[in-house]
Amino acid sequence: MADTSVYRAGTTAPVNIAVVKYWGKRDAKLNLPTNSSISVTLSQADLRTLTTASCSTTFTEDSLTLNGEVSDISGARTQACFRELRARRAALEAANASLPKLSTMPLKIVSENNFPTAAGLASSAAGFAALVQAIANLYELPDSPSDLSLIARQGSGSACRSLFGGYVAWRMGDKEDGSDSKADLVAEASHWPGMRALILVASAAKKGVSSTSGMQQTVATSGLFKERIERIVPDNMAAMEDAIHNRNFEKFAEVSMRDSNSFHACCADTYPPIFYMNDVSRAAIRAVESINAKAGKTIAAYTFDAGPNCVVYYLDENKDAVLGAFVETLGSTSGWKAGIGAQVGVLDETVAEILRDGVTRVIMTGVGEGPIKTDEFLIEANGETAKR
Amino acid sequence: MADTSVYRAGTTAPVNIAVVKYWGKRDAKLNLPTNSSISVTLSQADLRTLTTASCSTTFTEDSLTLNGEVSDISGARTQACFRELRARRAALEAANASLPKLSTMPLKIVSENNFPTAAGLASSAAGFAALVQAIANLYELPDSPSDLSLIARQGSGSACRSLFGGYVAWRMGDKEDGSDSKADLVAEASHWPGMRALILVASAAKKGVSSTSGMQQTVATSGLFKERIERIVPDNMAAMEDAIHNRNFEKFAEVSMRDSNSFHACCADTYPPIFYMNDVSRAAIRAVESINAKAGKTIAAYTFDAGPNCVVYYLDENKDAVLGAFVETLGSTSGWKAGIGAQVGVLDETVAEILRDGVTRVIMTGVGEGPIKTDEFLIEANGETAKR
Repeated sequence: MADTSVYRAGTTAPVNIAVVKYWGKRDAKLNLPTNSSISVTLSQADLRTLTTASCSTTFTEDSLTLNGEVSDISGARTQACFRELRARRAALEAANASLPKLSTMPLKIVSENNFPTAAGLASSAAGFAALVQAIANLYELPDSPSDLSLIARQGSGSACRSLFGGYVAWRMGDKEDGSDSKADLVAEASHWPGMRALILVASAAKKGVSSTSGMQQTVATSGLFKERIERIVPDNMAAMEDAIHNRNFEKFAEVSMRDSNSFHACCADTYPPIFYMNDVSRAAIRAVESINAKAGKTIAAYTFDAGPNCVVYYLDENKDAVLGAFVETLGSTSGWKAGIGAQVGVLDETVAEILRDGVTRVIMTGVGEGPIKTDEFLIEANGETAKR
Repeated sequence: MADTSVYRAGTTAPVNIAVVKYWGKRDAKLNLPTNSSISVTLSQADLRTLTTASCSTTFTEDSLTLNGEVSDISGARTQACFRELRARRAALEAANASLPKLSTMPLKIVSENNFPTAAGLASSAAGFAALVQAIANLYELPDSPSDLSLIARQGSGSACRSLFGGYVAWRMGDKEDGSDSKADLVAEASHWPGMRALILVASAAKKGVSSTSGMQQTVATSGLFKERIERIVPDNMAAMEDAIHNRNFEKFAEVSMRDSNSFHACCADTYPPIFYMNDVSRAAIRAVESINAKAGKTIAAYTFDAGPNCVVYYLDENKDAVLGAFVETLGSTSGWKAGIGAQVGVLDETVAEILRDGVTRVIMTGVGEGPIKTDEFLIEANGETAKR
């Protein structure tokens, strides 16, 4: 008799925010980067993608639903992930005839973010990490997170870093087929658990230049970019790993800020220039500088991805000084957790005014764990999408 | 009998706006740059400094009045200009005993700009060029503009380029004493007379980080800067001279825009980062891109000095297309000359809105001549400051 079962498995996956940035592909098809990168995985209590993967002979075709909307899966990146995962499942099935032939069944994937898509919050990283991990769970693949990161990388480069919690490096590798371009763990979240992140959401508008197109333009036209990938990033990688291993926040902060500056400098040096930061972003930088000046040492670090949002890293032990300065100005903005007292007069009034006008919400989070298997399913046992 | 005459001479001097930027000193005391640069001298009909230099035994001390306010002349830069000019006059006097001993008399200098000081309009360039040229006229020095540019350079680096009209290079030189770091003519204004500049004044506020301090921070901390001065600028210098000699506007424009991008990228890569451009500046870039897209070729070029003002270079033959697009949005802003018809719908509405809110005035000008000797004096024949 034909197997008409619905097989399903679920996972959550985290967002990560790089402190040494990925910008530039040496191979666009395989998503191979021009440089290595390091990120901090953020807590899924605050930001996560929840994905259910299912397969069944009763499904008519592969499908992906993201935040309630049917998503196009014909793109090469999603197809690459499906193909690689099916191939690994097929190998298991070939070795063990008793396994159901999941690799031959249409996949149905349903995914939800608990944060706005495409607001510069690395949603594609969490999304592809969750997609790959959910299907790996469904297929009961024995692959390690680092092995799975090879697949997620083909979906979205920075997704490979979301297969791990804590402090994660993406090693660029040097093989042409990309088989050594994958994530590995620099340190568990528990190694340095006090790392916190305050995200100042400057705009929820869709961004103007996509990361993929932007980084290709930078590689092709920026005269300064070569120096970044050949000298600046390798130095930053070594310094950042050292800072993480030694829990040296001042060094972590300086490298984060310098690397973010260098990345956005290369965007500005692109022809035509790419600008992800705006006046609100720049005010956030001045705010961080004021907080550090007031403290007499570096207790906060800014970093910006391909969008205007500022991510401020700080240690839990300095939360009063760091959060308090922002609460004084942004206290009426949504997203604050309880119990933070305002620190009056740290920020310059011009800076405060720009932040008040331009920051639409804040997100308080911190370093967190990698993907977590879950029984919270977005697809019912009968294969239908769950009503939410 | 003692000579109690009041000797006086006057000059006007122009502003120049670089198309390959000066940013970085290899010797701060002598104002020796890390790279060569090229600028266009702008017409004194629109922007100029008028300076009268006088000397007399009846004056009690050296003095400088700028725009009606007594200026501090104790700084090393002004002192260097006075010292160098006096030394050259003293040499003439030593060779010819009949010359009055002007070199021994206190100097009184009065200067006026016809535009706001420190609004990012290169006022120090015009100011020091006028100071040096006026005193050279007073002292009847036989020195060439290039010789005088050596002196002006010690007052303000980019001032050396304002000793010439037209298209001017500042050769960085390689001598330790700076004796080969001076301006020379790439081409007269008459070689390519159609060059026009529209200045979008984004803010008349004093700037946050002075050029001098900013460029020293870039030299000290930017990881990308070395690539700019060693490879990018030399390439841009060669390409720009070629573009000027061949009156190739498309090349002139591309090099101008790329060099401005590269300079501001190095500012953004400085630690802590320096931002001269703001959201209004970036909107102006998008406007120029739209104008070029509409034209189907490059008919306008943006460049930004150490401030938010956009200078748009274009050729007179394209004035309808270039000015018209800005008039449509900024027609009610002060500074337009008569007879420009609006070109509707070239600029994106978001860009237009940012420009309307942020551009406080426009200045229409174009390539022009070098310093011009004048009998319009700001000091009376009796040595008193003229009432204006």
